[in-house]
Amino acid sequence: MKTLRVSKDKNIKSVIIVGGGFAGLNAAKTLADHTGFQVTLIDQRNHHLFQPLLYQVATAGLNPADIAVPIRAQFASCENVSVRWGAVKGVNLEKNLVYSDDVEIEYDFLVLACGAQHSYFGHPEWEEFAPGLKTVEQATEIRRRILSAFERAENELDLEKQKTLLTFVIVGGGPTGVELAGAIADISRTVLIKDFKSIDPSKAKIILVEAGLRILMPFSEELSQKAQADLVELGVEVRTKARVMNINAEGVQIGDEFTLAKSVFWAAGVQGAKMDFTPAIELDRLGRVKVKTDLSLANYPQVFIAGDMASLEISPGVFLPGLAPVAMQAGIHVGKTILNSLINKDHKAFLYRDKGQMATIGKNRAILEFKNIRIGGFIAWIAWLFVHIFYLIGFKNRISVMANWVWSYAFSKRGARLITNKEWKLTP
Amino acid sequence: MKTLRVSKDKNIKSVIIVGGGFAGLNAAKTLADHTGFQVTLIDQRNHHLFQPLLYQVATAGLNPADIAVPIRAQFASCENVSVRWGAVKGVNLEKNLVYSDDVEIEYDFLVLACGAQHSYFGHPEWEEFAPGLKTVEQATEIRRRILSAFERAENELDLEKQKTLLTFVIVGGGPTGVELAGAIADISRTVLIKDFKSIDPSKAKIILVEAGLRILMPFSEELSQKAQADLVELGVEVRTKARVMNINAEGVQIGDEFTLAKSVFWAAGVQGAKMDFTPAIELDRLGRVKVKTDLSLANYPQVFIAGDMASLEISPGVFLPGLAPVAMQAGIHVGKTILNSLINKDHKAFLYRDKGQMATIGKNRAILEFKNIRIGGFIAWIAWLFVHIFYLIGFKNRISVMANWVWSYAFSKRGARLITNKEWKLTP
Repeated sequence: MKTLRVSKDKNIKSVIIVGGGFAGLNAAKTLADHTGFQVTLIDQRNHHLFQPLLYQVATAGLNPADIAVPIRAQFASCENVSVRWGAVKGVNLEKNLVYSDDVEIEYDFLVLACGAQHSYFGHPEWEEFAPGLKTVEQATEIRRRILSAFERAENELDLEKQKTLLTFVIVGGGPTGVELAGAIADISRTVLIKDFKSIDPSKAKIILVEAGLRILMPFSEELSQKAQADLVELGVEVRTKARVMNINAEGVQIGDEFTLAKSVFWAAGVQGAKMDFTPAIELDRLGRVKVKTDLSLANYPQVFIAGDMASLEISPGVFLPGLAPVAMQAGIHVGKTILNSLINKDHKAFLYRDKGQMATIGKNRAILEFKNIRIGGFIAWIAWLFVHIFYLIGFKNRISVMANWVWSYAFSKRGARLITNKEWKLTP
Repeated sequence: MKTLRVSKDKNIKSVIIVGGGFAGLNAAKTLADHTGFQVTLIDQRNHHLFQPLLYQVATAGLNPADIAVPIRAQFASCENVSVRWGAVKGVNLEKNLVYSDDVEIEYDFLVLACGAQHSYFGHPEWEEFAPGLKTVEQATEIRRRILSAFERAENELDLEKQKTLLTFVIVGGGPTGVELAGAIADISRTVLIKDFKSIDPSKAKIILVEAGLRILMPFSEELSQKAQADLVELGVEVRTKARVMNINAEGVQIGDEFTLAKSVFWAAGVQGAKMDFTPAIELDRLGRVKVKTDLSLANYPQVFIAGDMASLEISPGVFLPGLAPVAMQAGIHVGKTILNSLINKDHKAFLYRDKGQMATIGKNRAILEFKNIRIGGFIAWIAWLFVHIFYLIGFKNRISVMANWVWSYAFSKRGARLITNKEWKLTP
C-alpha cells in the first residue's frame, strides 16, 4: 500500500475530509483559500446530493442531476482543496492515516462526515423488498418500482393481483416517509390518472406505517395531527402504533396482519455510516460516533465527526437531530475550529442554531415549525418551496429545476417518468 | 397462456404495433382517433426515446428524461390507442398472434417496428468492454465510464496507467461515432479541464476507428473530409481503413497494433431486432426483415415492418437508410395503408422523401447535406440545432432542455455529470 503525504511543506497542514454531504462540503468550503491548509475531500460518489429533494426523484418529479452537483466543480477554483473519488473504509487514529482504496493518506486534521445509512433493525434481508431513500440509485430504483407497478397492474387480468400491485406500503412516519407517501398519492391521483385505460390509478392504496404514537414525532402534536389529516385527505391510510414484523416478496407483516403489497419502501431507522477505527472508539446504539461538545473525538483533538455520523447529547436524552441544517452548521463549526488551531485557540463547543423544521405533504401542503411558530397548509408549502430553492443556490441550474417544478405542478405532469433497467447489456 | 382479443366488435379491427420508436409512434398517431381501429402499442420500455440526442446523455450534456417521454402520455387522450408495457418475443403469422410475456394477442393488422441493435460482427464478448449507444441505460453506462476514467486517472500515480485511463477509443466512423468522439473531445478540452488538479483532461487521447476508406460514408467526400479536419482540430485522432480485430479489458487490437485503452465505445455495426417468426421469414444479412415496396411482408399483406427493422432495396445495392426521418415516414405510410384498407384501396409503395442528413462534430460545428446543398461549420450547426429542437416538439419540456443546452454551451458546463452505480443496495 502506498502512503500519500498530501502536503510536502511542514507548515501547511493536511486536512482530510471524508464525505461530500452537507457537513463535509461546508467544512471544506470554510477551509477553502486558507493557504495554511491543504484540504483533500474524499467521497465514494462524484456528486454532492441535495437529499431533502430526493423523494422528488423517487416520484419522477425531478431528474437526478437536478439535485446532484459534481463535488469537484465546487472547488475548481480553490487552489488548496483537491477532491478524490474513492471509498474510505478505515482510519488509524494512532498513526494519523486514512485508508482509501489502495493508498493510505496521512493527515494532520481529519473530518469524518460520512452520514448515515438505513438500518433494518437487524433484518438486512428486508432491504431487497423495501429499498430506502438515501442515494440517487435508491431513488431511481424506487421510481422504477412505482412506475412498473402501475404498468404491470395495467396488464394484469386477475383483479386480486392487480390490487396487490397497486398497494404501496411506506414504513416510517418521519419526514421522508410522509413526503414519499404524499407524493405517491399525489401522482396516482393527478399525473397517472390520465394515462391508464384498464386501471384507475387513483384507486392505488397507499399505507404509511409508523411504530410510534403519531407520525412526524419531532413536530408538535398539533402539526403532526394536521399532517395526518392532510395525508388522509390525499388518500393515504395512516397506521400509527403499527410495528413491521416481516417484509418479503409478497408484502408486509404489520403487527398480526399481513398486507399484500408488491411495493414497500423503507423510511424507518437509520444508523451511522460504517468505519473501521484503530483503535476502536465508542459508538452509540445507532452506530454513530460519540463526540465531545466541540465535535472532536475524545483523546484525538485533531479528529472531528460532523453531520449524521456524530452522536452528541445536547440535553439529557436529547441528541443533535439528523437534519441538513445541523450538518451544514457542524461542517462550518469544524472548519472554523481547524482554522483557529493555527493561533492555538481553544476549541469552542458546537451550538446548533435552530432553523426550525418543515415537511411537505403532497402538493400545496406542508407543515413548518420554528420555535413557537407553527404553520400548516399552503403558506407553509410556499415557505418550504422558497427555503428549498434558496438552498439549491450553488446548484447549477435552479432555473431549469424551477421550470421542471412549475411544469409538474401547473400541469400535473411528471417530467422524469422513466423506467430504466439496471442492466445495459443486450446479452443477459 | 391467455389469449387476448383486443377488439370485441368484429367491425373494429385490432392493430398491434410493436415498438414505440419513431416508426411505431408515428404509425399509432396516424391511426389515432380512427374509430374503425383499436390500436395496441407494445414496447418493452415505457418511454419513447429521441435517439439522435442520445450521445448528449452519454457525454453528460442532457438528462435521460430530457430526451425520453412516456409513450403512454402521448396517447392519454386517444380512446382507440392503448399502450402495453411488455416484451414481444415472437409472432405467429398463420394464426395472427403476437406473443407478449405471458399472453398471446390476436391482431387483424400487425406493425413490427422493433428497431435495430448493435452487432459485434460475431463477437458478442466484446460488448462488455465496448458498450453501444442505443438505449438510456447504455448512455448512462457510457457516461459512467467516461467520468470514472477521468476520476480514476486523477488518483493514479503510475503515469503509464494514467495514460491508459485517459485513452478513449470509439469504433465506427458513422454519425454516432463522430458525435461521440467530438463530444468527448469537447468536454475534456472545455468542461473537465477546470475541475481536475493532478491530470490535464485536455491531454486525453480520443481515437476514432473506421474500417472504411473515410468517415461518414453516407455523406459526400467533401463534407466527410471537412468533418475529419474538424475532428482533428478538436484533438481526435481519426484512423480510417483500420479494422478492429479484438477488444478486451486492456484495450483494442486495431489492425496489427494493440492500443491500451480503458474506455472503448461501439458505434459500428447494427443488426435488426430479434424476433421469432412462425413460419420463418426471409432476413437480409444484417438480420433485417425483407419487405415489399409497400413495407408489407410477402404473403402477409396485413403485416408491416417499419423503421430500422425493415430491409428494402430502393435501387440496386442501395437500401433504405436507418435514419429517424425514414422511420417516421415509414410509420406514417404504414398507418395510412392500414386506414385505406377499410375502403379496399391497393397498397401504395413507400417513397422516402429525402430530408437530407446531418451530423455534429463537437460544439459549433456540423455538416449538412440536402440534395445538392452541402454545408459545414457553424451555419450547419445552427441548422442542426433548429432541426433537433423542432423535432423535440411533443417532448415535454423543450424550454428546460434548451436551458440546459444554453447553459452547457455558454458556460462550458455539463449539467448531468453524474456517476451512478448499477447497484442500489448497501449490502453487496
